[in-house]
Amino acid sequence: MSWNSFGRMFRFTTWGESHGPALGVVVDGCPPGIALEEGDIQPFLDARRPGQNRFTTQRREPDQVRILSGVFEGRTTGTSISLMIENVDQRSKDYSEIAAKYRPGHADYAYDAKYGFRDYRGGGRSSARETAARVAAGAIARKVIPGVGLLGHVVELGGDRAERFAAQHLESSELWCADPEAEVRWKSRLDEVRKAGSSVGAVVEVLADGVPAGWGSPIYAKLDSELAAAMMSINAAKGVEIGDGFAAARLTGEENADPMRPGPAPGDPPVFTANHAGGTAGGISTGQQVVCRVALKPTSSILSEVESVTRDGEATTVRTKGRHDPCVGIRAVPVAEAMMALVLADAFLMHRAQCG
Amino acid sequence: MSWNSFGRMFRFTTWGESHGPALGVVVDGCPPGIALEEGDIQPFLDARRPGQNRFTTQRREPDQVRILSGVFEGRTTGTSISLMIENVDQRSKDYSEIAAKYRPGHADYAYDAKYGFRDYRGGGRSSARETAARVAAGAIARKVIPGVGLLGHVVELGGDRAERFAAQHLESSELWCADPEAEVRWKSRLDEVRKAGSSVGAVVEVLADGVPAGWGSPIYAKLDSELAAAMMSINAAKGVEIGDGFAAARLTGEENADPMRPGPAPGDPPVFTANHAGGTAGGISTGQQVVCRVALKPTSSILSEVESVTRDGEATTVRTKGRHDPCVGIRAVPVAEAMMALVLADAFLMHRAQCG
Amino acid sequence: MSWNSFGRMFRFTTWGESHGPALGVVVDGCPPGIALEEGDIQPFLDARRPGQNRFTTQRREPDQVRILSGVFEGRTTGTSISLMIENVDQRSKDYSEIAAKYRPGHADYAYDAKYGFRDYRGGGRSSARETAARVAAGAIARKVIPGVGLLGHVVELGGDRAERFAAQHLESSELWCADPEAEVRWKSRLDEVRKAGSSVGAVVEVLADGVPAGWGSPIYAKLDSELAAAMMSINAAKGVEIGDGFAAARLTGEENADPMRPGPAPGDPPVFTANHAGGTAGGISTGQQVVCRVALKPTSSILSEVESVTRDGEATTVRTKGRHDPCVGIRAVPVAEAMMALVLADAFLMHRAQCG
Amino acid sequence: MSWNSFGRMFRFTTWGESHGPALGVVVDGCPPGIALEEGDIQPFLDARRPGQNRFTTQRREPDQVRILSGVFEGRTTGTSISLMIENVDQRSKDYSEIAAKYRPGHADYAYDAKYGFRDYRGGGRSSARETAARVAAGAIARKVIPGVGLLGHVVELGGDRAERFAAQHLESSELWCADPEAEVRWKSRLDEVRKAGSSVGAVVEVLADGVPAGWGSPIYAKLDSELAAAMMSINAAKGVEIGDGFAAARLTGEENADPMRPGPAPGDPPVFTANHAGGTAGGISTGQQVVCRVALKPTSSILSEVESVTRDGEATTVRTKGRHDPCVGIRAVPVAEAMMALVLADAFLMHRAQCG
Repeated sequence: MSWNSFGRMFRFTTWGESHGPALGVVVDGCPPGIALEEGDIQPFLDARRPGQNRFTTQRREPDQVRILSGVFEGRTTGTSISLMIENVDQRSKDYSEIAAKYRPGHADYAYDAKYGFRDYRGGGRSSARETAARVAAGAIARKVIPGVGLLGHVVELGGDRAERFAAQHLESSELWCADPEAEVRWKSRLDEVRKAGSSVGAVVEVLADGVPAGWGSPIYAKLDSELAAAMMSINAAKGVEIGDGFAAARLTGEENADPMRPGPAPGDPPVFTANHAGGTAGGISTGQQVVCRVALKPTSSILSEVESVTRDGEATTVRTKGRHDPCVGIRAVPVAEAMMALVLADAFLMHRAQCG
Repeated sequence: MSWNSFGRMFRFTTWGESHGPALGVVVDGCPPGIALEEGDIQPFLDARRPGQNRFTTQRREPDQVRILSGVFEGRTTGTSISLMIENVDQRSKDYSEIAAKYRPGHADYAYDAKYGFRDYRGGGRSSARETAARVAAGAIARKVIPGVGLLGHVVELGGDRAERFAAQHLESSELWCADPEAEVRWKSRLDEVRKAGSSVGAVVEVLADGVPAGWGSPIYAKLDSELAAAMMSINAAKGVEIGDGFAAARLTGEENADPMRPGPAPGDPPVFTANHAGGTAGGISTGQQVVCRVALKPTSSILSEVESVTRDGEATTVRTKGRHDPCVGIRAVPVAEAMMALVLADAFLMHRAQCG
Repeated sequence: MSWNSFGRMFRFTTWGESHGPALGVVVDGCPPGIALEEGDIQPFLDARRPGQNRFTTQRREPDQVRILSGVFEGRTTGTSISLMIENVDQRSKDYSEIAAKYRPGHADYAYDAKYGFRDYRGGGRSSARETAARVAAGAIARKVIPGVGLLGHVVELGGDRAERFAAQHLESSELWCADPEAEVRWKSRLDEVRKAGSSVGAVVEVLADGVPAGWGSPIYAKLDSELAAAMMSINAAKGVEIGDGFAAARLTGEENADPMRPGPAPGDPPVFTANHAGGTAGGISTGQQVVCRVALKPTSSILSEVESVTRDGEATTVRTKGRHDPCVGIRAVPVAEAMMALVLADAFLMHRAQCG
Repeated sequence: MSWNSFGRMFRFTTWGESHGPALGVVVDGCPPGIALEEGDIQPFLDARRPGQNRFTTQRREPDQVRILSGVFEGRTTGTSISLMIENVDQRSKDYSEIAAKYRPGHADYAYDAKYGFRDYRGGGRSSARETAARVAAGAIARKVIPGVGLLGHVVELGGDRAERFAAQHLESSELWCADPEAEVRWKSRLDEVRKAGSSVGAVVEVLADGVPAGWGSPIYAKLDSELAAAMMSINAAKGVEIGDGFAAARLTGEENADPMRPGPAPGDPPVFTANHAGGTAGGISTGQQVVCRVALKPTSSILSEVESVTRDGEATTVRTKGRHDPCVGIRAVPVAEAMMALVLADAFLMHRAQCG
């Protein structure tokens, strides 16, 4: 159960609102004896942090994480790990307009319809600030599966696809873009979008290397299913693909085949000569690279007036001033990477439980 | 937990292999007092049943469902409902080849890597026969949410999209296609594919009308997340979209907006003038039509030889003779519809628990 | 979730009513590769079976178990295992009286209050026939923890305690009694009770040897908690104890201490010189014998008239003719043993997941 | 899952160690719109707080609770509620002895056996300080079921039972004792025990009035089972009873009967003329008072030397100086009350989900 929890064995529960005093996460099921300190988590939060360049929201949060439990003398104890991040930049602002009107595309109306009222300050619980908690949990997940290498990047922005993959460019990229030429185009596009008070969508891809064959499970705990649920829980996500995804639906069986050959040495696992499947078969990892993409819609906070209604049901219009990301997909990269880490750590523990 | 279960409150657990004596499902959490008999379930199984026309596998299964528990004097009692379907057409066949070789694209290698061995007869647990159990459970879910109307159809086959939506054509369509012209093209394509021993992929869409605003929950029980997990658990699924999905990532905030207007009468819920979001905001239903699409890869069973390895790691090739669907996407329609019903029934009970 | 499921990793779901066509259980999470056939399960069902001597209900059920899934070529595959037992002796009987009146002490009124109606035939889902499903699942659990030895016995019947423990007497005992003298007294007592149409309660103890230190978990998955939940779910259970249980509450800290000494050889685990705790500390096994007792009330089905009400709220009286156990505690022994096996198998898999 | 979580729909997750910076709880599933502020929680923490009189440990903790999320403008929002309590009195102490030796009866050895090492400061996660988090969560649970009245008291201390129930005495009792004469005896006994550096056990009873018929569920979510798991998770708990509990096992069916009569007015629910069952039948509430008792062992921290071993397996002895409760059962009263509230709130939401 638990609406605010994810994972089966490696399970985390997040809490906190955009403008509350703090946000955090409790990680349960972490194996004992893993070296862990705040310095293992902070870099991932820093990578996600807003306000780092002109392409992301100007809210400035230090996002300093504190470990409150579950770690003793620098190692995980096997008990619940509590992480907390204080909210600092809760800019004093007049929220009466948001309180009274529903912002189209945001969760405002849906929350009111469900709960009868809502914490309207900065979106409350529906704010993407919640993703800081996931990124923190994801940093722990990474330590549970040390052999797995994760790489997240933006593969499409505003409908413009990256054409090549220069991994070394990623470190210096301000947009998590592995294609230097595409990054130039995207920056130019984002500058326009930002000036116009508009927004664009993006597609983020996460690659996982080093996942051994055998993680994941039939039928409803398929690795594909867990990844789909994880990625679709990210704010603004509207689509998920594993491997070739929707493109696979346009291939023939011959084109989509992932042939296998014997491994280089006797006893080695087989080698695949293609990876249309994205690293899974029957919901279980095959030892290939796990490939997952998530589509993020353009943020609904735009300067143009959009028709809406008030809480009282009167016609009105909404336009969003203030600080917002022109493309939420950019800051979704560390979040999607974290979700991949969390799903894989969970799958690893599940596999170990059943298969030793 | 539970690898073979799905749902939180309205929860079902499936069991059974392709060539075992039977398959079935236990549905837990069903509200009491709902009229239910085998005749409420059988039509959905009949719609999914193989061997009904030349476009689906020629395995012939009557798929007669029996209710073994949880129903008394024609009404659900609130206790666990057990449904069983016997396997009849387990054609006696020599499985020694499948036993010894890994069929590329199938779960053969992954199961062996995970479990050390596998039930190789017809794919065992990884066979799409398991979906009969879901369809049966879905028939019960429909009765839990009687105000919701569900419609599943194929929107793309082999890369060829349906262009129009003639709902009345669906009933007579052999391919769950609402576009009569597209159906003609698709049949021709499928005949070619079948003769060539090849296969094609498809995209299935499910629409749900009558879902009130307020179902679904933040953060990890978002309706979008639950649907993504549900759809991605279907055999051959490699992508899921809610609303505009990946296309939304190519829109601007203005293009993607779903404006709201006051409802027709005072006190009415607001009216949306677009539905890019596919009926959800913040993971919660908005009262609009819920729209979900799932991409199905072409079946990996093809007549062409594909390189593979034996269980012993020797190079070999695999080609699939025998009865198979040229496009598994067609028979996925009733399954996807059932999964939508199951997710919505669950969301309804969850909502009622928390919000009364 | 799931009202009809138990366990976290080794998880089972039961279904079936007293007078339905069958009952069964789906076991999920069983490790692959374990030798399993119906002959591994049947002896435990035979031990629980009613009608074997004059001290248990005269309902005659062969309780033949069938494995319907999850086993291939004599070994578990790692997928869901479905077991089914057909109901045979559903004696044709007039249930109109039970339908119209609430039997005090039975679940009749509570079910009606909860669900609005009930399957009144033989108690429906509240019948102890459900425990056959647990015993079947427990037989699988035993194979998951082959090093653990389980022994269940009746330690008190009608307030008369067994004084000594002659394990070898258990095999021939008709009452699961390890004290030959007590058995003589108990039989005499039960004959009186049966003739008088009365009933008596009992206390059942289950001992588990060979449980290594480290199974179980803080805080809410304590081995003690899991055992308490498991035992209290048995029909007629009203109390559970671990180790000295309520007697420990009457001891001083000195009297209740379980001193430790070094093991016989260097590197050996410590040896405990007492076991007041019943094999756990902080919810985790210590390597000692795990000791659990469950108190079963006398069955409420008695020949004496008891005041009651009809479904319509009219005053009435109820007296139970027909076949019933004079002491349900006797047949609870194999059930309590099975629950211990199920809890330990689950704890083992949970431990392996987290601690490798 | 989740070792540190409890509850199905109303679910809470605790974190924190005895000597960490803080401890806390995340409550998930709370209905929206419930008035909640820190002042609703603090009195229950104050009642549990140590150091209030000479009969409990002299650790002095203010146990000030902070609400960090899930509440907006004084009402619950339906999202996860995070509560935190800082640890203040972490007396600087030399823990090298506890680090190196296993205290018999404590979790020291079991934690080491399971996890390979442990946070030895004050027992770490196994400390009863964790129960502060439950008490805080329980305060929220009470507001979910406002019609239910809860009363916890000590019914037996050191084997000496309270003989009468003077509810009005409870408020002024320092020992949660409703029998003024027993309290005099118990105080005298506790003074002796404390001076001797010994300890005694206790039995705590919790009564719940106002629980309507129909809460709880067959088979594995029986109210009895949930209560058993909840109570057995309390530190030092070794036994649980519902209603007459173990005493019921010594009654005949006639003695144990709970007769029913028509309610006072037409349409009223039936009236029971006895309550041996403790308010449940078939695991479902009957509308009677719910009665649950839990046996707490004497604390293992005593001044007498007890044989033990070091971490290195050497023989040693342990005697506990320092601040400890002579009877942990006293401070268990607010904890047991909280667990009853938590179980009932959960059962209420579960019932509402399934039965509307």
